[in-house]
Amino acid sequence: MGLNSNRVEDFSTHTGNTTVRVSTEIPMPAAPEAVTMEIHSVCMPPKKTTFQKLKHRVSEIFFPDDPLYGFKNQTWCKKLVLGVQSLFPICKWFLEYELRMFRSDIISGLTIASLAIPQGISYAKLANLPPIVGLYSSFVPPLIYSVLGSSRHLAVGPVSIASLVMGTMLSGSVSPTDEPILYLQLAFTATFFAGVFQASLGLLRLGFVIDFLSKATLLGFMAGAAVIVSLQQLKGLLGIVHFTNKMQIIPVLTSVFKHENEWSWQTVVMGLGFLLFLLTARHISMKKPKLFWVSAAAPLTSVILSTILVFCIRSKAHGISYIGHLQKGLNPPSLNMLYFNGQHLALAIKTGIVTGILSLTEGIAVGRTFASLKNYQVDGNKEMMAIGLMNMAGSCTSCYVTTGSFSRSAVNYNAGAQTAISNIVLAAAVFVTLMFLMPLFYYTPNFILAAIIITAVIGLIDYQGAYKLWKVDKLDFLACISSFFGVLFISVPLGLAIAVGVSVFKILLHVTRPNTVVLGNIPRTQIYQNLHRYREASRVPSFLILAIESPIYFANTTYLQERMLRWIREEEDWIKENHESTLKCIIIDMTAVTAIDTSGIDMLCELRKILLERKLQLVLVNPVGNAMEKLHNSKTLESFGTSSVYLTVGEAVGDISAAWKPQP
Amino acid sequence: MGLNSNRVEDFSTHTGNTTVRVSTEIPMPAAPEAVTMEIHSVCMPPKKTTFQKLKHRVSEIFFPDDPLYGFKNQTWCKKLVLGVQSLFPICKWFLEYELRMFRSDIISGLTIASLAIPQGISYAKLANLPPIVGLYSSFVPPLIYSVLGSSRHLAVGPVSIASLVMGTMLSGSVSPTDEPILYLQLAFTATFFAGVFQASLGLLRLGFVIDFLSKATLLGFMAGAAVIVSLQQLKGLLGIVHFTNKMQIIPVLTSVFKHENEWSWQTVVMGLGFLLFLLTARHISMKKPKLFWVSAAAPLTSVILSTILVFCIRSKAHGISYIGHLQKGLNPPSLNMLYFNGQHLALAIKTGIVTGILSLTEGIAVGRTFASLKNYQVDGNKEMMAIGLMNMAGSCTSCYVTTGSFSRSAVNYNAGAQTAISNIVLAAAVFVTLMFLMPLFYYTPNFILAAIIITAVIGLIDYQGAYKLWKVDKLDFLACISSFFGVLFISVPLGLAIAVGVSVFKILLHVTRPNTVVLGNIPRTQIYQNLHRYREASRVPSFLILAIESPIYFANTTYLQERMLRWIREEEDWIKENHESTLKCIIIDMTAVTAIDTSGIDMLCELRKILLERKLQLVLVNPVGNAMEKLHNSKTLESFGTSSVYLTVGEAVGDISAAWKPQP
Repeated sequence: MGLNSNRVEDFSTHTGNTTVRVSTEIPMPAAPEAVTMEIHSVCMPPKKTTFQKLKHRVSEIFFPDDPLYGFKNQTWCKKLVLGVQSLFPICKWFLEYELRMFRSDIISGLTIASLAIPQGISYAKLANLPPIVGLYSSFVPPLIYSVLGSSRHLAVGPVSIASLVMGTMLSGSVSPTDEPILYLQLAFTATFFAGVFQASLGLLRLGFVIDFLSKATLLGFMAGAAVIVSLQQLKGLLGIVHFTNKMQIIPVLTSVFKHENEWSWQTVVMGLGFLLFLLTARHISMKKPKLFWVSAAAPLTSVILSTILVFCIRSKAHGISYIGHLQKGLNPPSLNMLYFNGQHLALAIKTGIVTGILSLTEGIAVGRTFASLKNYQVDGNKEMMAIGLMNMAGSCTSCYVTTGSFSRSAVNYNAGAQTAISNIVLAAAVFVTLMFLMPLFYYTPNFILAAIIITAVIGLIDYQGAYKLWKVDKLDFLACISSFFGVLFISVPLGLAIAVGVSVFKILLHVTRPNTVVLGNIPRTQIYQNLHRYREASRVPSFLILAIESPIYFANTTYLQERMLRWIREEEDWIKENHESTLKCIIIDMTAVTAIDTSGIDMLCELRKILLERKLQLVLVNPVGNAMEKLHNSKTLESFGTSSVYLTVGEAVGDISAAWKPQP
Repeated sequence: MGLNSNRVEDFSTHTGNTTVRVSTEIPMPAAPEAVTMEIHSVCMPPKKTTFQKLKHRVSEIFFPDDPLYGFKNQTWCKKLVLGVQSLFPICKWFLEYELRMFRSDIISGLTIASLAIPQGISYAKLANLPPIVGLYSSFVPPLIYSVLGSSRHLAVGPVSIASLVMGTMLSGSVSPTDEPILYLQLAFTATFFAGVFQASLGLLRLGFVIDFLSKATLLGFMAGAAVIVSLQQLKGLLGIVHFTNKMQIIPVLTSVFKHENEWSWQTVVMGLGFLLFLLTARHISMKKPKLFWVSAAAPLTSVILSTILVFCIRSKAHGISYIGHLQKGLNPPSLNMLYFNGQHLALAIKTGIVTGILSLTEGIAVGRTFASLKNYQVDGNKEMMAIGLMNMAGSCTSCYVTTGSFSRSAVNYNAGAQTAISNIVLAAAVFVTLMFLMPLFYYTPNFILAAIIITAVIGLIDYQGAYKLWKVDKLDFLACISSFFGVLFISVPLGLAIAVGVSVFKILLHVTRPNTVVLGNIPRTQIYQNLHRYREASRVPSFLILAIESPIYFANTTYLQERMLRWIREEEDWIKENHESTLKCIIIDMTAVTAIDTSGIDMLCELRKILLERKLQLVLVNPVGNAMEKLHNSKTLESFGTSSVYLTVGEAVGDISAAWKPQP
């Protein structure tokens, strides 16, 4: 047990005869002859009606950030302006826009465009969509985000994870090659529902839903997805024609090695060459952040180089597959392609919700990261509405799910972006591409798209982060690992569900099996601390002081009662062995019992009854939160007697032991 | 905000110049000239390897009661005896059995038998099983429980809730009238799986699973089930022939009023007459617990009376339905009826798990209740194994799910039962009934069974308990109400699932939106308490002391960061308005932060960065639990500096404000 050290022989030696000085340098007042201890009573929280409590609760749940704070004490006119500015953040920052910012925004906008165009085409292929949809998705959404969004550095467009998940979930039921129109309809419909879901999370202020995807979970999930995506790209990189549509690691690896005869050596050589080039560029930029443009420019460079290369050798190498004809022109409207009835509607809604929540998580996290670097605030609920509206509008203009991409936002930030104007510049560049440059992509080989995807997703594997999780929190590591293996071996949505389950289980476990510690007094102070941890702390004879470190809920009342009775039994055994003064009083320090429910109250009453039969007194100390109120409402306080509740452990020990002493 | 009261004008007036006396009556030591404050450092918890931590965790999760405690320091021989006694509690208490106990046990055994025989027949009908199965289930299980069980007052047999749930779940897929053999097979198989599930929960020490059915949930669930069951009994009470098999309130009520033409007035008159008699008997016993035998004897009395009555008028009243022929003889073996493959296996397993968990909850709760009244311990995990083995054995001897019944156990207790011998007496009485008295039940009318069921389940509606929940804990009341309406309008298992969901949601809500409170100093003490609640507490100028009342987890980091920044903003606004001394230091009291994960640590680091840019110092106080260790492992402590962590708020305030004063 290790708790048997440091027992103080006599009570008076460590709590009596002691003065604690609170402040420095100030001379003490004349010491009074008879020192009397002041006992503070525990206050009830201020009276509130049920409605007031509900109102407080609701405002804490849905409006913790006090969104109307800025509107207080303003004229009506000012309020209107603030309202418009809060709906369209562009109205706010555009007034303060300066020309020198424009230069930075143009540079960063063009830089992310050079990254977004090849990535857009690649990610669309990852979602089994026509490559041009990726370009469409890099045109409309950035424009909408620049009007509605509150982040200055978010670079908007398709992202790898959401593309991957959409591709997996939809192609599980509908084949993109056999029924391309239906598949496209489902993709737009899923995008629409993703947008509706995101916007309603924001509107209903339920943004905390995405908090349940913890960083640890996402770490494992993204690493697993990156591995799967990279392996899937072996199709393009090796030139395999017949490849599985499944996303688990086993069928993917089987596909790779079963079709060895399809490997095309020209594709393999060029693919690996360009992959090496891209990885080297990425490595250089990571080592020296100032050289961010090396990795930013590499994809476009390699697309241009590889296209030229394939164009030159087109007659000799028939094994190399390339994109082929792309339609010139801007996004066609796709409102008529939304699919609101039929057997696949449920699939579209499910895909929309999963991709919606994933893209939201990435967008918000990226926005917050760069906002904190530049010390401005991003309002989560407002961002959700911006991203949601952007996807709803996107679904009507031939775009699929988009959000703020981590890699492109980082490039945007490093390239010196000042405002969302860089997104407008990006859209303009994509506009030019869509209108005039499409024929140039005819000979762009598929292997270069595979290489670009691999380079992008390989950065998602953060093994150092996983090692840190292992070092700091084993259960977080477990959540991380289970989402990693869940994604690899089971499926993307199920892997995610398992990881969320592990995270929630962690919370429940903490509540189901809370810590209970025995406290001791630190000599010459009123401080009571964990005996097991503070070697200088010493037991108080005749007392057993227990601290419960969790709310007392139905899920832990049985455990807590058993555990406390065991502490008492062990204490009594120890006393018997050491011939100490008998146990007379159990003090429960409830400072960390931040909530209690009816089961918890019943447990305390029963514990008191059990202890009374053993002639042990039960005393509660410092019931915080709603505990005092509930003890009162359930009439428990009456049956305990007001002298059973103290404000501090020190006062309880002092008062009770004083009452034991024979009166003079 | 209501927090603006009581601000102390000058720092020194309330923390300086003060002496706190710890104990009474003991004269103070000579006051030293220069009073220096002692600063205590925060200790790390004792070093443990990962394996040791895991071991500790596992032992707290699975063995909180230290089950091998009694075996410590014993000889091998004694250990063996203790082991046998712990497996078969009968070996322990039978040695101490005295003859005078036997008299009480016989009386209580016969009393519960008079209740168990009519209830057994009735409950079997509730589960859509032949009435005789109810009697079989009152014979074998009590015998097995008396050997294995550790409760002395539990009266074992079929119970209403489990019977109802089994009847509902099985008859949803298989009709008990069209396929009686298959239905019976499924019932025995479900019983077998219920037993396996219960025994394995006990064996794997996963007993805490049943803790997730909180008392509030069960209250609503049982009330809902009681309403449904009572309404279903209108079939027997009104003499309706065609009745729905569904369990929701709407089809049941429709059935009652659609078949008005089938109502038989003789049945209605006699049924209501006996129901009134039974309810009166129940009321008398509730008012005067000494007259417990009135309600205990009433069912058998009314069975006898009604049987005689029906026998006498059998030629005149054809509308009255009665039980008919019952097979004489003991339980036939039913091992060959267990059903381990085929399309209904999943249903049988599901039914087994749901009825298993419900009957376990009732059995354990009842056992614990009476154990605590007589001040002995019931080991939850051991009870689960006993109940599980009893059901496994039952499923092979034509019994369906059994457990400890609340109503019969209460009668058993009141009748003076001393040991599980009363269960053996009960089994003996059932044995005699099965062997010799079966023909007597030929004319027992079905309306009396309905009346007995209604009388039994009506006691499950505890509206006073529900009112108490409303008064004490609104969220518990919500869980109660949602399980009530879930059972009434949706279905029994779904209603239960919804209620468990609400209970778990309550825990998660507490973690997702924890309380944060501003602390103030109670004058002339080192006590810091909620400013909003303790009117005498006063703010400490230049400090903002925040207490977080929950673990810091991924689910609340975003909220907490936003909320703390809002507290700071509000404090700064207040200072500006009141021309107070500027805010310099934020103290976070982590006493109630009983756990922290990697997201929480990241949040603290980010908060510190944000505050540093605003020239505000961030100080942590009393990191308990694993917080200190994780701060250290993640190197956060290094970056914070050791002077940013204090043991108490008082020491932090004293030390930091001393450092601000110009050195003399």
